[in-house]
Amino acid sequence: MGRVVLIGAGPGAEDLITVRGLKLLMQADCVFHDALVSPSLLSEAHPDAKLVAVGKRCGQKSTAQHFINKQLVEAAEQYKLVVRLKGGDPMVFGRADEEITALKAAGHTVEVVPGVTAALAAASSLQASLTLRGVARSLTLTTPSVGSDETPSTDLFTGTENDTVAVYMGLRQAGPWAAALLEKGRNANTPVILCESVSLPAEKFTPLNLGRLPLFSAEQLTDGPCLILIGKALAKACVELQLLKHNPEEIALPDFFRAA
Amino acid sequence: MGRVVLIGAGPGAEDLITVRGLKLLMQADCVFHDALVSPSLLSEAHPDAKLVAVGKRCGQKSTAQHFINKQLVEAAEQYKLVVRLKGGDPMVFGRADEEITALKAAGHTVEVVPGVTAALAAASSLQASLTLRGVARSLTLTTPSVGSDETPSTDLFTGTENDTVAVYMGLRQAGPWAAALLEKGRNANTPVILCESVSLPAEKFTPLNLGRLPLFSAEQLTDGPCLILIGKALAKACVELQLLKHNPEEIALPDFFRAA
Repeated sequence: MGRVVLIGAGPGAEDLITVRGLKLLMQADCVFHDALVSPSLLSEAHPDAKLVAVGKRCGQKSTAQHFINKQLVEAAEQYKLVVRLKGGDPMVFGRADEEITALKAAGHTVEVVPGVTAALAAASSLQASLTLRGVARSLTLTTPSVGSDETPSTDLFTGTENDTVAVYMGLRQAGPWAAALLEKGRNANTPVILCESVSLPAEKFTPLNLGRLPLFSAEQLTDGPCLILIGKALAKACVELQLLKHNPEEIALPDFFRAA
Repeated sequence: MGRVVLIGAGPGAEDLITVRGLKLLMQADCVFHDALVSPSLLSEAHPDAKLVAVGKRCGQKSTAQHFINKQLVEAAEQYKLVVRLKGGDPMVFGRADEEITALKAAGHTVEVVPGVTAALAAASSLQASLTLRGVARSLTLTTPSVGSDETPSTDLFTGTENDTVAVYMGLRQAGPWAAALLEKGRNANTPVILCESVSLPAEKFTPLNLGRLPLFSAEQLTDGPCLILIGKALAKACVELQLLKHNPEEIALPDFFRAA
């Protein structure tokens, strides 16, 4: 029976995969990869390895999950080492459970190698701690994105005013869920940073606040993946980004921005 | 002026650091490291590099943060490339903000390289997705650990019954915060997995449930770092761990365990 390793490719940059992940990628006979995995990382695969794109990206044509599962099982029967590269980490928003279940049911050996998730990579680029003593004691990774058989929800998370939140795949629905957060009592001045193409050459950060978030629609931004960081822990980074843009008046600074 | 790179060493295994992190570690003239960074990873540093242990570990003697900041600034003046290795990722529960602020104030160049945080590595070892369609849409990383100038709190997080929670540095205070969660209405049967020495040879997982968590005190466990995963998404992994122990009766399986 075959050996399949699910590997977190990390946030995008080819050198933000783990050492273990890269070594396995270089040994693989067959590599399945998401749309979010960078071409330069894929170029590290063995020249003879078969590359299979099973890209899934919000709003674009993608391969159905059950078909990916089927393809993985077939590849495991055919190749010695199959690698399944997933953007970020496989165990958050990665649907790894479905792939692991299908592979194990078919009798194959499965391993999982973790990866750096986008929120942590964005924080590194911003040099902004996501938990801060006395300010934020928790970080929640969440998404408004649901399966086709689920009811969409704006009830993203119920953290306190001070908790840090990282919203994955949330830009297109930012209007409704941001409005829901405001209704629940989150301050309109809560710092927000839109993080596009984290760790890639096209990396871009846009500082704003929760009250203004619904005004930013997906159309105003690039086609790259976008993560949204929310919370007081981002206050200093927000101010620094605004100063970099030489336009400190563009976004009104709330009081706790000035204090940061 | 010096160059200092804060690097996430990952959960423990030496090959779960990122490729970028390892390359910088191998080039560094001076390496500051936590107690959680494994000796085998440190052995990758250049033989001439100066290694400085600034270990901090719950309940043990450690170096005060302000002294670490001062040491880092001094090293940045003396060495070409200083690496600050932190267990896990630098931007969650890492106090990176204080080190970055001190270094920048002294005029040094700072970079941050993200790392794999323990919750994601534990999920990989368990082969358990922390978010699951229809079950858990969010993952919260939190801690009951507070600074000496803060009031300890059992009010860890306010996620819904279905959210997945990873509690860092929480074992010693597990009694009070688990009780608080139960009081708030979390089901006593909510799956819990104690994750010790994640990704290391001594890695150990103990399945239980939220109702039984207060019975497990720090003394019953090993001296290694312990992460606590909580939530329905862990149900299948809990059952599998119990079957591995050949003692399925040890912990009563709630209904949704059986359904998994």
